[in-house]
Amino acid sequence: MREQGHEKEHRRGRPRSEAVERAILEAVVTLLEDGVPLGELSVERIARTAGVGKATIYRRWQGKEELFLDVLREIEPPEPELPGTSALDDLRVVLESMRRRGLAQRSSVLLHNVVVGMKSQPKLWAEYHRTVIDPRRAMTTDLIRRGVASGELRDDLSVELMHELLVGPMLMRTLHRPGAPLDEDLPDRIISAVLQGLRPRE
Amino acid sequence: MREQGHEKEHRRGRPRSEAVERAILEAVVTLLEDGVPLGELSVERIARTAGVGKATIYRRWQGKEELFLDVLREIEPPEPELPGTSALDDLRVVLESMRRRGLAQRSSVLLHNVVVGMKSQPKLWAEYHRTVIDPRRAMTTDLIRRGVASGELRDDLSVELMHELLVGPMLMRTLHRPGAPLDEDLPDRIISAVLQGLRPRE
Repeated sequence: MREQGHEKEHRRGRPRSEAVERAILEAVVTLLEDGVPLGELSVERIARTAGVGKATIYRRWQGKEELFLDVLREIEPPEPELPGTSALDDLRVVLESMRRRGLAQRSSVLLHNVVVGMKSQPKLWAEYHRTVIDPRRAMTTDLIRRGVASGELRDDLSVELMHELLVGPMLMRTLHRPGAPLDEDLPDRIISAVLQGLRPRE
Repeated sequence: MREQGHEKEHRRGRPRSEAVERAILEAVVTLLEDGVPLGELSVERIARTAGVGKATIYRRWQGKEELFLDVLREIEPPEPELPGTSALDDLRVVLESMRRRGLAQRSSVLLHNVVVGMKSQPKLWAEYHRTVIDPRRAMTTDLIRRGVASGELRDDLSVELMHELLVGPMLMRTLHRPGAPLDEDLPDRIISAVLQGLRPRE
């Protein structure tokens, strides 16, 4: 029996396993698209929709939180690749990526609802911060340190403050002003204005 | 009867009416402090706690939303008075006021919960935006226009972009980084850095 079970598992192999994962992720998306609030999605219902057993879900994800984070990764624009040509080039790509996520959240009711639903669940929101937001912040902070080292940025201000000056304006435009334009040139305009400063030229 | 009713109303006068209002506002605060979530507070329960009838509440507020907004006004630090000496002086006071609200939200579990509770109720959140956030934004935008007119700020950038450059960093520090320090000199450091820009001096 054991041998047989093992062989069966073996015969399924990777592709089959990925198909199951995909079916589960798609089941969550389907339920959310049908208007089921994130907070009301149970593992049981997801399993039923995907046509698998609950154990199949728990074998792949520790719990609902981990599963939802993978769903979000599926529907959010992917993390950008940095060109690495200069710190400011990379920062521009980071701001462009924020702009694209902002556009996606505005155009996709699904994505918008998932983000709102996560915010109202402290455990899920904390997990999102730990696995998504914090690494993004660390990466951007590193970029700013590189910019200071390369002479692209001032070396007499705290890295945190510079981070807020560079990222805060885009954050405000995307998250706090739902109706404001998110034009293509916004990353350039922000970086250029923050570099030059708001003091009138003599 | 009419005469009598009118006289009764008259005899009560303003002070009595204010005492009733205060009792109702305090009933909401008491219930929230007792851990009742904002979404579960009914007018009936508020009335019972305040020792008044439901009609007494509806005579003063159109509904729960308006009442909650008054409660928030009670527990939030008051809107600042602007010195009017210069646009930048006034902007500094605006940022200082954001810093104080940030501190208050961190130290007051009550205030924090009210804000979180409001965000999860679209109608209430929209009303908060209309009556609190939008007027603040309009005031700050006017200040920036004054700063451009007086030559304190550049005249070749959009007012919206400058608004985001000046306010975005404080917004990010207070709302998006719950653990970050909110030191007294933060408004000055932000304004000074935004004015000078992040480009290294030659």
